[in-house]
Amino acid sequence: MSGNLISTRNVSVEWGDCDPADIVFYPNFFRWFDASTAHHFTAAGLSKNELRTRLNVVGFPMRTTRADFHAPAAYGEVVTIETEFVRFGRSSFDVEHRLKRGDTLCVEGFETRVLVQRDETGKLVPYAMPDNIKALFRTGG
Amino acid sequence: MSGNLISTRNVSVEWGDCDPADIVFYPNFFRWFDASTAHHFTAAGLSKNELRTRLNVVGFPMRTTRADFHAPAAYGEVVTIETEFVRFGRSSFDVEHRLKRGDTLCVEGFETRVLVQRDETGKLVPYAMPDNIKALFRTGG
Amino acid sequence: MSGNLISTRNVSVEWGDCDPADIVFYPNFFRWFDASTAHHFTAAGLSKNELRTRLNVVGFPMRTTRADFHAPAAYGEVVTIETEFVRFGRSSFDVEHRLKRGDTLCVEGFETRVLVQRDETGKLVPYAMPDNIKALFRTGG
Amino acid sequence: MSGNLISTRNVSVEWGDCDPADIVFYPNFFRWFDASTAHHFTAAGLSKNELRTRLNVVGFPMRTTRADFHAPAAYGEVVTIETEFVRFGRSSFDVEHRLKRGDTLCVEGFETRVLVQRDETGKLVPYAMPDNIKALFRTGG
Repeated sequence: MSGNLISTRNVSVEWGDCDPADIVFYPNFFRWFDASTAHHFTAAGLSKNELRTRLNVVGFPMRTTRADFHAPAAYGEVVTIETEFVRFGRSSFDVEHRLKRGDTLCVEGFETRVLVQRDETGKLVPYAMPDNIKALFRTGG
Repeated sequence: MSGNLISTRNVSVEWGDCDPADIVFYPNFFRWFDASTAHHFTAAGLSKNELRTRLNVVGFPMRTTRADFHAPAAYGEVVTIETEFVRFGRSSFDVEHRLKRGDTLCVEGFETRVLVQRDETGKLVPYAMPDNIKALFRTGG
Repeated sequence: MSGNLISTRNVSVEWGDCDPADIVFYPNFFRWFDASTAHHFTAAGLSKNELRTRLNVVGFPMRTTRADFHAPAAYGEVVTIETEFVRFGRSSFDVEHRLKRGDTLCVEGFETRVLVQRDETGKLVPYAMPDNIKALFRTGG
Repeated sequence: MSGNLISTRNVSVEWGDCDPADIVFYPNFFRWFDASTAHHFTAAGLSKNELRTRLNVVGFPMRTTRADFHAPAAYGEVVTIETEFVRFGRSSFDVEHRLKRGDTLCVEGFETRVLVQRDETGKLVPYAMPDNIKALFRTGG
């Protein structure tokens, strides 16, 4: 059975990630989600350097992102972030992150990004992803 | 004519707010929006300290937040953030932020937060906002 | 009487700048000092863009920095940072920052940085500051 | 032979840790060093929670810190931070961090901190470290 590639990484919640309410200051979740999206490319065998050299892609800027907060995370905890790409358009793609502490779902993150490259004039233009690239983010077959 | 109170503050984009793409690293927009929501309470005459002492409110944690990215902001620019509370529930409220560079709308931020206080047992419970508090976030009459 | 140019800017301590001890998380002082050094160039009439276009300087990386912590700063306070360049070498210069809350000296920052430019081969090399540039950071005469 | 306990942890340099010069924005090194000092307590068997419950210590605020920058670190690199406590006073202690990329020493960090506890009146006072606590940060014997 095929499905989306899911990558997982652990984040240790540090003192400086937390605010006077003794919980993670929420912009830090976006910082971690951004790193998780980059790690997901690497997990699929396409590091940012690969993107640059093989595909002439300069990045994947954000169009819109949302986070839903279900439970706080606090100093000293180690949380896990699961990441998958849940939709591919021509150049855009949707990302979902699930940040958990043990079995507790703390934060869900949603992103729509678009892959961009430079055309001959130096202008940033959308990069149309070929199917064999999209396939890297699937498992099974 | 009545309307929502709109507060405005300027943010100077610093070198350390930007990433290797030479634009603001997007989690920083959430950092700025969080400060703008706090400033909006102060603009309405209800600083966080007032909330604490007068209303026994301990904070306004986030339930969900979204940002739409229309144009990047870069080092050396001064951007303006306009903030208003666009909906009040019993304890929750919705915030909208518009971050502009001159007339250009760069980022829109949306938040749903809930005011919480501690009951006699120390548990965090929603704070039901009286109408005279909600009225502070309106102008005219 | 002549002396060093002293520039001053205010920083509003936000919720997200503080840690669970309810005081500014100290790396944020370095973030603010870095912005103050950049503002000091601008105050002297040499913004980073001027440095780039007029002097072919690409930046002023840090060699060493130190901060001494005398009193904490907390959420809701507005602090003032005074900045001056206290020594010029050939390409290096020393910066002092004094962060105050009213008359209370909270943090002192010290930096040694070096101005660098690119030579014809693209290598980063020290930029030897002419006297008329150094004079911009002095007052009187 | 006895010596100082040395703890080591890896840090992955993320996109958002870097500035438009394509290198780590230096306040982030202090953020990482702060986490390394906390991890060093844990490595010695004295987590912050242990400090609180067993020793009634509320924290170890910074008195002074310095960093020397020898080589930059960039996006995509994994760096290693080695941490040791190199001096103990009555309540204060000195920390050294060495941040390396492979064999290259990139940044050295130096800290003087002081352990504090609350006396009966709630005032923060220095905590005089007994020898058996100091011994936790030594190896061999």
